[in-house]
Amino acid sequence: MRDLLPADAESQGRLLARLLGTFDLFGYQRVSLPVFEYAEVLERGLGSIEPANLLRFVEPETGEVVALRPDVTPQVARLVSTRLAAHPVPIRLCYRGSVVRRQRERARHDQQILQAGIELVGAAGLSADLEVIQATTTALRQAGLSAFTVDLGHGAIAQSLLGGLPPRLKLELLEALSLKDAADLGRRAQRGGVAESTREALLALLSLHGGLEIFDAARESLTGTPAWPHVVELEQLARAIDRAGLAPQLVVDIGETRTAAYYTGAMFQVLAEGPGQAVASGGRYDTLFERFGQPRCAAGAAIQVDHLRWALGAQLGEGRTRVLVAGAADDAAVQSVLGALRQAGVSAAAAEPGAGGELPLDYARAWGYAVVARPLGTGEAVDSFSAEGVPIATRLGVEALVRGLRSPRE
Amino acid sequence: MRDLLPADAESQGRLLARLLGTFDLFGYQRVSLPVFEYAEVLERGLGSIEPANLLRFVEPETGEVVALRPDVTPQVARLVSTRLAAHPVPIRLCYRGSVVRRQRERARHDQQILQAGIELVGAAGLSADLEVIQATTTALRQAGLSAFTVDLGHGAIAQSLLGGLPPRLKLELLEALSLKDAADLGRRAQRGGVAESTREALLALLSLHGGLEIFDAARESLTGTPAWPHVVELEQLARAIDRAGLAPQLVVDIGETRTAAYYTGAMFQVLAEGPGQAVASGGRYDTLFERFGQPRCAAGAAIQVDHLRWALGAQLGEGRTRVLVAGAADDAAVQSVLGALRQAGVSAAAAEPGAGGELPLDYARAWGYAVVARPLGTGEAVDSFSAEGVPIATRLGVEALVRGLRSPRE
Repeated sequence: MRDLLPADAESQGRLLARLLGTFDLFGYQRVSLPVFEYAEVLERGLGSIEPANLLRFVEPETGEVVALRPDVTPQVARLVSTRLAAHPVPIRLCYRGSVVRRQRERARHDQQILQAGIELVGAAGLSADLEVIQATTTALRQAGLSAFTVDLGHGAIAQSLLGGLPPRLKLELLEALSLKDAADLGRRAQRGGVAESTREALLALLSLHGGLEIFDAARESLTGTPAWPHVVELEQLARAIDRAGLAPQLVVDIGETRTAAYYTGAMFQVLAEGPGQAVASGGRYDTLFERFGQPRCAAGAAIQVDHLRWALGAQLGEGRTRVLVAGAADDAAVQSVLGALRQAGVSAAAAEPGAGGELPLDYARAWGYAVVARPLGTGEAVDSFSAEGVPIATRLGVEALVRGLRSPRE
Repeated sequence: MRDLLPADAESQGRLLARLLGTFDLFGYQRVSLPVFEYAEVLERGLGSIEPANLLRFVEPETGEVVALRPDVTPQVARLVSTRLAAHPVPIRLCYRGSVVRRQRERARHDQQILQAGIELVGAAGLSADLEVIQATTTALRQAGLSAFTVDLGHGAIAQSLLGGLPPRLKLELLEALSLKDAADLGRRAQRGGVAESTREALLALLSLHGGLEIFDAARESLTGTPAWPHVVELEQLARAIDRAGLAPQLVVDIGETRTAAYYTGAMFQVLAEGPGQAVASGGRYDTLFERFGQPRCAAGAAIQVDHLRWALGAQLGEGRTRVLVAGAADDAAVQSVLGALRQAGVSAAAAEPGAGGELPLDYARAWGYAVVARPLGTGEAVDSFSAEGVPIATRLGVEALVRGLRSPRE
């Protein structure tokens, strides 16, 4: 529950437009989905979000339990499995939307997160995984992010080593893996009677984190294990990302398991300096759609718009230059200047001068107007000033004022 | 709770961008506000929405009653009265946001409505009212709406005639006025002991509906009543709207009372053929801010984006032309063509040809691709086809393909 004031809201809007524009270039078509819907639909599709983190309530009219969506992907899965069921694959959809997640520990206020995301349904293999990562990283670059790391993992590697183990032991081992706790992992695996070769493979996962060279080490420790085909798949993807230059920095985490309950194949996070959380994340989830009655392979990604905004920081740049026209809003000359500026695509509004005719400079600075224009005569020309009151030009025609705004200033 | 499929979601997004772009031209700066917040804040600012139409729930962490916002204006009032309290007036803010209203009769599903709106805080008088109407109608025109009616009323006219009457009688008379039920209005007024001059004025309100000529009739029946200064104010505004050519059609409803509990001055609706409800509505509400501890004059308006979409119908036009590249996504020639198209700002994606090499025309039609391109050689050129498979051009360079997409076709 957080408000964004003008400068932040404006840059958020600008970033969203860039992200969705890039998704559109990649052929991802917009869908719009409701902020809340049947909890049961949302619960079917929960990934890394705990069911307890859903914000539920009873819809008075129907008596149904609904929830504020913690993720848009289950809604897309519902839509694809119903109204778009007969459409040919691959299905490329994108969305913008706020998701809501309960915050139970430090921050007691529920968190509302703005996302822009894509879903690629009915396409599998290297080229599909690559497309999702390419659309995501291209969108981030178009939004201005140039320094970032793609952190690549695979949802099936650890899972495949744990196949056949009792569910409870499996959960314990996954937790030890996610905590990168070698001692605990070894102890629990031994106590659980896990075969020595599997134990060694599991322990090896903990250190298989780094650049592309990590695949040499993986070859030594994982060849012949059930994880091997997935490692090969991941290596192919990592090398394709590298060849295509999709990531300024690429890190592979073969032992990554945090979101492995959801992802069935390649998964990735985009990290950047600033926000403590990923700027974007995504991957392949080939088992989600069967929960909606229509098994389909699928991959997707979501960009956290406010994390991106944070990561961009000063690089967000200024918004557009606005012109404040000094004078009464019902003055004909003021209206003439306002009309001409707006006609030329320049944001402009009026503010009254002070009692002694002083320029409304406090007003201009408080609201981020870079230029103050005082109309002359019937409004064919203006004197222009900076928001600090420094004269820029005198007796300037409105067209010349507009040209001046558009030319880069030193 | 309604999904929008690609064509509709795309036109919704396009309209929103136009509306917010126009608000920006008028100097209205974006704010972003949460989808739900303390019910108490929202209840303070309810206008024409019944408190019972709020969708409330208890936030588990805090035990607070929160509600999905039925209107963004109370949130803006909260924001202006807190974080923006020290900013100089006039304050010009705009927003986009979904509002949620309970639907209790026919439609049992709660309604989620997308709005784009403006708020002008701390400015009063003719020029402020005119500015809100001008920004609204200009935004609608920029979005493509050319045929519409501005229906103008005033929140204080009926109220001023009812001043001093017992609250219950006042409510009864307002209801009879809103139902335009002359017999019932006369009967209740007489029974309630309302002075004859006031009774006559109230009855006159029922027929004071029409073009600017209605002010002549109003002069006869309302001069000297407490309503008269408000009628004069409304006439000045109506004539200014007419002079400025803000509305293709202007209708004045001096007896309009439906939303008069909220509006304290001029109020308006924009009506267009198609949707049964207003495309936009707004007005002056000078008593809202005192409920947030800071009395301020204010006016605003909200555009119902989906009603606008409905009113525009066929005028919405097609979205951008997309190109489907026939071939495997991992084919180098396909990637080359895709890259060149996207570089040129054209939306493009790949789809595999049929088993016998047939063009993926069913796919193109199902997903609205106007052009199918089959790469030749390493992707320097393509053969292009319509989605019906009709050849458009052969051996076309990608640049020429892009030029062809941009030139208007017959």
